[in-house]
Amino acid sequence: MDLREYFDEFTAKDWPRADEGTVRFAMIGLGWWTLDHAIPATNELEHLETTTVVSSSTENAQDVADDHETIEHALTYDEFQEGEATDAYDAVYVGTPNALHLPYVESAAEFGKDILCEKPLEANVERAEELVEAASDVTLGVEYRMHVQPAVRRMRDLVDSGFVGDVALVHGNMSQPLLDINDDHDQWRLNPDMAGGGASVTDLGVYSINTTRYVIDRDPVAVSGATWSGHEAFDDVPDERASFTVEFPDGVLASCTASQNAQEASSLRVVGTEGELLLEDAFLGGERKLTVTRGDTTITTEFDQIEETKRSLEYFADHVLTDTPIVGDGEHGLVDQRAIDAVYEAAESGERVQL
Amino acid sequence: MDLREYFDEFTAKDWPRADEGTVRFAMIGLGWWTLDHAIPATNELEHLETTTVVSSSTENAQDVADDHETIEHALTYDEFQEGEATDAYDAVYVGTPNALHLPYVESAAEFGKDILCEKPLEANVERAEELVEAASDVTLGVEYRMHVQPAVRRMRDLVDSGFVGDVALVHGNMSQPLLDINDDHDQWRLNPDMAGGGASVTDLGVYSINTTRYVIDRDPVAVSGATWSGHEAFDDVPDERASFTVEFPDGVLASCTASQNAQEASSLRVVGTEGELLLEDAFLGGERKLTVTRGDTTITTEFDQIEETKRSLEYFADHVLTDTPIVGDGEHGLVDQRAIDAVYEAAESGERVQL
Repeated sequence: MDLREYFDEFTAKDWPRADEGTVRFAMIGLGWWTLDHAIPATNELEHLETTTVVSSSTENAQDVADDHETIEHALTYDEFQEGEATDAYDAVYVGTPNALHLPYVESAAEFGKDILCEKPLEANVERAEELVEAASDVTLGVEYRMHVQPAVRRMRDLVDSGFVGDVALVHGNMSQPLLDINDDHDQWRLNPDMAGGGASVTDLGVYSINTTRYVIDRDPVAVSGATWSGHEAFDDVPDERASFTVEFPDGVLASCTASQNAQEASSLRVVGTEGELLLEDAFLGGERKLTVTRGDTTITTEFDQIEETKRSLEYFADHVLTDTPIVGDGEHGLVDQRAIDAVYEAAESGERVQL
Repeated sequence: MDLREYFDEFTAKDWPRADEGTVRFAMIGLGWWTLDHAIPATNELEHLETTTVVSSSTENAQDVADDHETIEHALTYDEFQEGEATDAYDAVYVGTPNALHLPYVESAAEFGKDILCEKPLEANVERAEELVEAASDVTLGVEYRMHVQPAVRRMRDLVDSGFVGDVALVHGNMSQPLLDINDDHDQWRLNPDMAGGGASVTDLGVYSINTTRYVIDRDPVAVSGATWSGHEAFDDVPDERASFTVEFPDGVLASCTASQNAQEASSLRVVGTEGELLLEDAFLGGERKLTVTRGDTTITTEFDQIEETKRSLEYFADHVLTDTPIVGDGEHGLVDQRAIDAVYEAAESGERVQL
């Protein structure tokens, strides 16, 4: 094996690349992800620029604008929806609480702007369907960082090539100590009106569901499982913790867990009839570790984390500028939303839910 | 930390040890585990000896007896049940197909012999209850290798001491390519009359269930999940593959998988509010790897596999000789059997089963 080729293949950006043009962004919702990841990414990339920020107050938006040379417009949500400064941006990044994706996507679509929406699409399937419908005439991408993660792409290639034989079983887990990140018990992630069905499956479980879909190239057919909440901050949501089975075509069974109140941990394990793939620190953390086993031979690859949000925004902009369809589009996002809603329904009713 | 102390603690045999005496065994059922693991273990250990072997035919039993100096009696199952050579052994190891545990346990108990029974106890709960009832006047141990596994004991200690905070989520998986080990499609593990509810949950899933119980010191309260069979050899059993959630007290949720038709793989992951424990090659394989994380610090310990069957037989004999109660006794085994039966019921009905 030519190691250079291996490296190149591993980190390949294998999507249509833009040669020219710039996608000017309005950043909607100035939470930690937008500030720490999304805006800096546009600043560093060639074909992207943040020109507009949108928040609950002019002050809040202006504070962020003041920190960045390229940002010319600091709008409130109302001003954004009234169509202010539409000449200044070409696309929006929607990083608001889940239940506020729909109104801003509707406005952006009305203005003819392309949309990169945070996952999950919305608070529930009905609203997500409205969102996709509203965005039918623009490019809608869902921010699935994992689709541009080199190790995840490598797993997808290995599965596709038959390296592990037939995929049999999958394990996906993701947990983080949410209250250590933000100790406000009234934050939107703990409020079902804003987050949707709950706190952990919507925000974290979606990684196991979506990344499994991406890696094994199949969509869920049924789910079952259980949720539990005990900590007082999780009084309004059912899922401080969740454990659920996702059934895929050809009998692939995925065992997934998620918790917003546990040690930061994440992994994705794929067991096939002839091999095994294990990605440690799969969805969070500074270093990815991919362990590949076939028969008796195991190879482990450790590597620094690619700046996924940067890559993901670039991926979106490249598709917009080259006018090519995105894998993680609205229809793709709806499949996750249906699975998420079904996990809550299954956990509450105690019955498997067919999709 | 004194490394010597750490090693000593890690490999400690912390149960009552026998000073004198010998437990003479009758080995019932001469499958690969009995021949490759159980009989050699008794030969190497001080207080154990195999004096009697029991199989379907005299020839088969005599062939094994001829290979071992200590074995004086080669019996058929009928001869064993008729009480031949009862003076020659003190205890029996029951390594027959699951559905044949009951009759031989009944006979052994009738002869006043102590019993080490392979897991799961029997083919279903009703028969397992009969078995435990039959053995009420003798020492009955279930062969849970993991209870004497140093890494597993270490995990149990770490959980008990609060090292990972409150346990939140568990992942357990075990799979092996059964047909590569034995390519007979009519083998007992694929025959529900002999194996019980199925092939994978009974034989492999039980490791995740029981080891989780042992490590977190709680018993299951409900299960849900799914099974799937596609390969022709698995036509008569529902679970070529299985994925199931086991709910424990205090909201501990365990996501487990098992398959008799996949790459050899096994692991046990425990995620708590303050740390994570991951045992790779947990239940099979030549080397165990325990990764312990608390906060931002991770320590990985790799070590050669302790000969678990040897240790497990010694554990049983020590308890018999010192007349002390075993943790993995019949009542303990019944809890697993109820969980196993419930997984099959839940998968078939599509409904969570309370225990």
